[in-house]
Amino acid sequence: MKLWQKDKASLKEVEKFTVGRDQEMDMFLAPFDVQGSLAHITMLESIGLLEKNELAILSAELKNIYKRIQQGDFKVEDGVEDIHSQVELELTRKLGDVGKKIHSGRSRNDQVLVDIKLYLRHEIKEVTTEVKHFFDLLIEQSNAYKNHLVPGYTHLQLAMPSSFGLWFGAYAESLVDDIITLQAAYKIVNKNPLGSAAGYGSSFPLNRTMTTQLLGFEDLNYNVVYAQMGRGKTERIVASALSNIASTLGKLSMDACLFLNQNFGFISFPDELTTGSSIMPHKKNPDVFELIRARCNQLTALPNDIALSLANLPSGYHRDMQLLKEILFPAIQRLKECLRMAHLMLSNITVKENILADEKYKFLFSVEEVNRLVLSGVPFRDAYKKIGLDIEQGKYQPQTTVDHTHEGSIGNLNLPEINKMMSRALESFQFADAEQAVEKLID
Amino acid sequence: MKLWQKDKASLKEVEKFTVGRDQEMDMFLAPFDVQGSLAHITMLESIGLLEKNELAILSAELKNIYKRIQQGDFKVEDGVEDIHSQVELELTRKLGDVGKKIHSGRSRNDQVLVDIKLYLRHEIKEVTTEVKHFFDLLIEQSNAYKNHLVPGYTHLQLAMPSSFGLWFGAYAESLVDDIITLQAAYKIVNKNPLGSAAGYGSSFPLNRTMTTQLLGFEDLNYNVVYAQMGRGKTERIVASALSNIASTLGKLSMDACLFLNQNFGFISFPDELTTGSSIMPHKKNPDVFELIRARCNQLTALPNDIALSLANLPSGYHRDMQLLKEILFPAIQRLKECLRMAHLMLSNITVKENILADEKYKFLFSVEEVNRLVLSGVPFRDAYKKIGLDIEQGKYQPQTTVDHTHEGSIGNLNLPEINKMMSRALESFQFADAEQAVEKLID
Amino acid sequence: MKLWQKDKASLKEVEKFTVGRDQEMDMFLAPFDVQGSLAHITMLESIGLLEKNELAILSAELKNIYKRIQQGDFKVEDGVEDIHSQVELELTRKLGDVGKKIHSGRSRNDQVLVDIKLYLRHEIKEVTTEVKHFFDLLIEQSNAYKNHLVPGYTHLQLAMPSSFGLWFGAYAESLVDDIITLQAAYKIVNKNPLGSAAGYGSSFPLNRTMTTQLLGFEDLNYNVVYAQMGRGKTERIVASALSNIASTLGKLSMDACLFLNQNFGFISFPDELTTGSSIMPHKKNPDVFELIRARCNQLTALPNDIALSLANLPSGYHRDMQLLKEILFPAIQRLKECLRMAHLMLSNITVKENILADEKYKFLFSVEEVNRLVLSGVPFRDAYKKIGLDIEQGKYQPQTTVDHTHEGSIGNLNLPEINKMMSRALESFQFADAEQAVEKLID
Amino acid sequence: MKLWQKDKASLKEVEKFTVGRDQEMDMFLAPFDVQGSLAHITMLESIGLLEKNELAILSAELKNIYKRIQQGDFKVEDGVEDIHSQVELELTRKLGDVGKKIHSGRSRNDQVLVDIKLYLRHEIKEVTTEVKHFFDLLIEQSNAYKNHLVPGYTHLQLAMPSSFGLWFGAYAESLVDDIITLQAAYKIVNKNPLGSAAGYGSSFPLNRTMTTQLLGFEDLNYNVVYAQMGRGKTERIVASALSNIASTLGKLSMDACLFLNQNFGFISFPDELTTGSSIMPHKKNPDVFELIRARCNQLTALPNDIALSLANLPSGYHRDMQLLKEILFPAIQRLKECLRMAHLMLSNITVKENILADEKYKFLFSVEEVNRLVLSGVPFRDAYKKIGLDIEQGKYQPQTTVDHTHEGSIGNLNLPEINKMMSRALESFQFADAEQAVEKLID
Repeated sequence: MKLWQKDKASLKEVEKFTVGRDQEMDMFLAPFDVQGSLAHITMLESIGLLEKNELAILSAELKNIYKRIQQGDFKVEDGVEDIHSQVELELTRKLGDVGKKIHSGRSRNDQVLVDIKLYLRHEIKEVTTEVKHFFDLLIEQSNAYKNHLVPGYTHLQLAMPSSFGLWFGAYAESLVDDIITLQAAYKIVNKNPLGSAAGYGSSFPLNRTMTTQLLGFEDLNYNVVYAQMGRGKTERIVASALSNIASTLGKLSMDACLFLNQNFGFISFPDELTTGSSIMPHKKNPDVFELIRARCNQLTALPNDIALSLANLPSGYHRDMQLLKEILFPAIQRLKECLRMAHLMLSNITVKENILADEKYKFLFSVEEVNRLVLSGVPFRDAYKKIGLDIEQGKYQPQTTVDHTHEGSIGNLNLPEINKMMSRALESFQFADAEQAVEKLID
Repeated sequence: MKLWQKDKASLKEVEKFTVGRDQEMDMFLAPFDVQGSLAHITMLESIGLLEKNELAILSAELKNIYKRIQQGDFKVEDGVEDIHSQVELELTRKLGDVGKKIHSGRSRNDQVLVDIKLYLRHEIKEVTTEVKHFFDLLIEQSNAYKNHLVPGYTHLQLAMPSSFGLWFGAYAESLVDDIITLQAAYKIVNKNPLGSAAGYGSSFPLNRTMTTQLLGFEDLNYNVVYAQMGRGKTERIVASALSNIASTLGKLSMDACLFLNQNFGFISFPDELTTGSSIMPHKKNPDVFELIRARCNQLTALPNDIALSLANLPSGYHRDMQLLKEILFPAIQRLKECLRMAHLMLSNITVKENILADEKYKFLFSVEEVNRLVLSGVPFRDAYKKIGLDIEQGKYQPQTTVDHTHEGSIGNLNLPEINKMMSRALESFQFADAEQAVEKLID
Repeated sequence: MKLWQKDKASLKEVEKFTVGRDQEMDMFLAPFDVQGSLAHITMLESIGLLEKNELAILSAELKNIYKRIQQGDFKVEDGVEDIHSQVELELTRKLGDVGKKIHSGRSRNDQVLVDIKLYLRHEIKEVTTEVKHFFDLLIEQSNAYKNHLVPGYTHLQLAMPSSFGLWFGAYAESLVDDIITLQAAYKIVNKNPLGSAAGYGSSFPLNRTMTTQLLGFEDLNYNVVYAQMGRGKTERIVASALSNIASTLGKLSMDACLFLNQNFGFISFPDELTTGSSIMPHKKNPDVFELIRARCNQLTALPNDIALSLANLPSGYHRDMQLLKEILFPAIQRLKECLRMAHLMLSNITVKENILADEKYKFLFSVEEVNRLVLSGVPFRDAYKKIGLDIEQGKYQPQTTVDHTHEGSIGNLNLPEINKMMSRALESFQFADAEQAVEKLID
Repeated sequence: MKLWQKDKASLKEVEKFTVGRDQEMDMFLAPFDVQGSLAHITMLESIGLLEKNELAILSAELKNIYKRIQQGDFKVEDGVEDIHSQVELELTRKLGDVGKKIHSGRSRNDQVLVDIKLYLRHEIKEVTTEVKHFFDLLIEQSNAYKNHLVPGYTHLQLAMPSSFGLWFGAYAESLVDDIITLQAAYKIVNKNPLGSAAGYGSSFPLNRTMTTQLLGFEDLNYNVVYAQMGRGKTERIVASALSNIASTLGKLSMDACLFLNQNFGFISFPDELTTGSSIMPHKKNPDVFELIRARCNQLTALPNDIALSLANLPSGYHRDMQLLKEILFPAIQRLKECLRMAHLMLSNITVKENILADEKYKFLFSVEEVNRLVLSGVPFRDAYKKIGLDIEQGKYQPQTTVDHTHEGSIGNLNLPEINKMMSRALESFQFADAEQAVEKLID
């Protein structure tokens, strides 16, 4: 049954096909693979599957590898399939047979599971930091531009007065809700799958509670079959949460493109941040916003992409999961880039003054005028009729100031309250617990 | 510019097209529309936009309508566009002009926003109840079948021993994580958009904090532009959370279809729950599981469907949002049905005894045998070699009992811990707050 | 194993769950189910599985049922699962045992396969008719408005002059390409799956070539396993083709919403076709276009929804397929509605005169000016410099006429060529073949 | 308005963000960019915008660059944005100012449009070649294994006898339909957008018919606004067609994984093509099929990913389009790899003999037995009753041969007819026309 034994070229192609982009993608996992191994061997020693001195030399060398990874001095060599193999290879090269012992009571399946969990936990923290940075800017700009009125549209039709204070503040508040879903994703990520082995546990008396504490996880994925089921599911849930942030950024970008369009002309940016043309001086292409929008749309598609890969697969590991790395990991980096780019753009925005002074916006105030009459005692029905008549007879001359006072309105942006909502959302992450554990583990 | 004025048929078709399925879909919103109106008028009276006696007669009639809705004695009439119009129509029919006053300081936009929030809040509670009911069964069955071993597969290949205790328990634990994402969705739903009017607030001195308390919301959607931005976004986030539950059910269903297949033959169901054939006695079609799987796949597609509708739309209300009702609302009902059906099926499951006694499963124990030798003191390398040789020489006779002791393994299912995780997840909803407020509002 | 035998309520719910919306959805299939049966029994008689007189009475009654369906005088009764059962029930009620004979050599699986193929074949023809009707209008309007210049945007920034001649014509030409993909879908639909039975053929000497001819199919789905595999695949391919038309309509609708926005203000519609407000006279909400856009986005999501249902399912029939009916069938009706609505709207459009006369559009002509100089002999580099300088010094006074002559440009819309492309695309359907066969079959 | 002028690091990041992966992705387009330029300058000369000798030296240098690209001796340098800039840069380096003249009457927008069209045209041909190669193998294996019976499943339940002849043949026939949709995509691709400039045409008297012929396009994208609208739309339509092939491969892979599972055990592969374990001799992990399945699922998601990027964008170029390159171009390469891998696997498959001899499959023949009696003259009702009774009384002893004779059945696979369908589908591409034109263009 070795019909094609000599067919070396085909075998080569098979290897290339199965390895795929793992060598590149696994570099995202490298530091976390070492963390996971450190926790695992510490536990192995505690249950007698490793000698004290074996633990010592393995730990030392793993920490050495960790440093090299941090310094960018580590890679998956050609001919080595993945990060797990590379680490093991380096250990055995240096330490001989004891290097192989780190794999007792563990399978590639739970090893990559824990790597991904640690990686995503780390990335969620990084994304959260970027979101907070951008949120702070939005709050700041909301306050700075609270008196810059702008048309508010419904059905893309001129409707009522709005303000740039409202506009910036809306996206700030949107990020609060996005963070709430990210926090749920974090809770799901922050559970320990290590010890589930190939997805059915081990006959070794592993101490999974111990590795959970060592790695600073909040809890275990108890059931080993469920721990394995978390592969793909975790990625999808994280992608969904990230896609909420992406949707917020995407909508902001669409608004920005529209507001920069000359028919609106509400905002502008320094020349260095738009693409122009000496011969078409009106052209200020919002390339950065268009690319944020596109990247964010790609991210929004991601949960569905993952779902399609997993749909209708029975429980248990399938190799299909491997390819989720290459659609999720770079996307996370892209999202952080988008947040930084959006921050850069909105730090340098200029909002036009007196936008609503333009005659074409005067009907924006018609509802205001009616309400004003009502508040002065005129019955609504009569007020409405009067303004309607004024308009018909060309006598309509609205006041163009706006006096909104209720919660969340032009005159009362509630920025401190929105700030507080964000603080509450951020506190619930408790990133410090995980960080302290990991620091202790790697010294 | 009325070229087609006489074209009545066309106008009729336009009306039909724009109303769409709203008359049907809005019945999901009916009780919540009344709740929202009761809170709104109570607040209007407090800020002097309604007389005390007007509030009294409006409240009485709204409560009357509420009762009729509860009794199934209410519908959106032909020629009436939506639930909001129907309620207003009935009020004015009965009370005359005062009926129209409920609409001061409010727009259709924030009215439907608050209706949807209240509806989704209610449905999340209902879904949670069904999930808990199903979870309890899974825990019970996990315990009942903890000694029923079954092959564990990786790559769909026989790998290691597993158990039905693990299998049931895995899906129970999966639901815990699903509930965590649903809880995040609930937090986002449970904020008050009422008072945002058409999405740009109002010049009336509304008291949005008051309606927030009256309706039992945890907080406000402060920024009025963001409140409007919540339309579509809320639906997508809720759909994402529901799709997690759906994915869990879908995978369970695929497993069940496979296990019921005669090549596996691990489980069976009473004839009434499968579709058979007198001439093909082997046939037990798992139609219920296939339909759960399909329904759950449809639900998994839903967040993407919503995303596609909203992608690249600038901020502000668009009529497009209307159509989200008909893709989300029935899907929620479907999910509850699926949970009930899965409960019915798994209440009546029979798991085959002694599955692993079949000769073809004996290699499942090879890793166990190696580990056994290791635990008895044989070095791993030698143990591995010995079992490999035994297999090669046909001398391999494994013990077919399994002694796994670590957390989450066959011998230690941690059902109490999983139960506790679920309880913690459920407690954080605090459904009672909302319920008490609503009860007080409608008496 | 009838633990729950007395649990009638549960059984009732199971029945409700499994029947789903089939009774409603199958009415789309009703006439085609009869057509398929007529072909099947004619063939059965030819191979001796039915007597000549049996064929006669069965045919007569089937044609009778067909007429009732056409007259709207037929429905799937309560307690009857689907259209196939209903037809069989009515035959046996009237004709006794001979009624059951129509099912020899056939399975529900190939029966519904052929029904769906005949239904989709019919619907593709209907959609094509609507597309052609709308296409003709677009060509007509392109010609009518060929001199109405309008800004052309890139990056949503003012770029170059365009025209409504171009705008209408672009969507016309878009529909040609859409029809090409629909034609491919039609070829795939127009193959006969009847005779594949449950997906593995039959030991009866069926004459599948004969039913192919009787039903006017262009070819057979030969391989019976593939015939069954066509379920779901056919639906997805048709949905993809329809989604192309939907994307064209969706983009047109977005353009229309933008052009109707007051900052653009390029087009308008009669009051009856927009939603206005007496107090906000500027408001002309384009609800019809927003709903077309939303419906079309839902259709665009459909191929993915179907893909998610089918992903990773092994070959062979699964009950999951049943639910595709309710996501595809109504969507087809919606698309036809959207085409009619778009036709109605664009029949009544008014395009503003002299849009480009507005000062803010003058830079649109800068490239024109450069080219004009180049064509008059000035080297490009110098021409470019001169116009740039003129602009800088405020001396830029462009000609605001446009003289484009090449293929597909403002001055040369190539409408006859686009018309010809559409005619060629339409001819390749050869709908008449199918129609004649079906007419002959039902008399 | 240059607040951040000194902020070089930010500007660097903006550049990195906007360039993205273009330098890498544009290498797919390199040869086609040169082809497009050759056609463009030939045309420019014909309308007097280029001197004869300018054409000569530009042509010579472009052909030189073309050779370097073919030899892998060309890349987009650091600091150069894209392929178009790189080619222009090399021309001006070598030829001075005349190098810039190639850009008259052209914009980046139509340049990249024509590049993508030429690239996709080329790739469709390549994919088609791989499909045909795989199709031929499937036909060959269908014939080779026509007598290897295997259970046929419906609802994943044992249903009727099938055969590996049917199984291989089904996937062959599936590819025919897939090619039909690819052919429609090809027709849409094979139209010339060059000359549409930035999407609104040019005031130069371009001869677009001439470039159409030079590049071997079947027709023009006439309307210049539509030509630009083809960006994204073309990619989506091509992705849809490719996803049909991917779905076929994905389903085949799922079947293969199932059939390789030990509970089925119908097929096997040489050890080199599966992943095993010395200690678990039963393990033959089908990694290649799992990865094909996963890659194909990613491809199936692609049309939706593209749709999400484009949804609700108004007409005209947007920078968002740029990012479609990186999701589509590598995916095409992956699909070709998957086709080659599937070919390698199925070339080396071993199908088990006498699968149906296993006792557990005997009920597969019950319908056969009934039909056999019917064909021998027993009324169906009696035949059915007799077999049912036999089964009940344990007297059921079916013949285990199968005698199916109708079109597409086990005994009549119609391979020549399926072959003919494929040939007809392939002929309609007429790849030679395009090839000859391109060869002539580049000498």
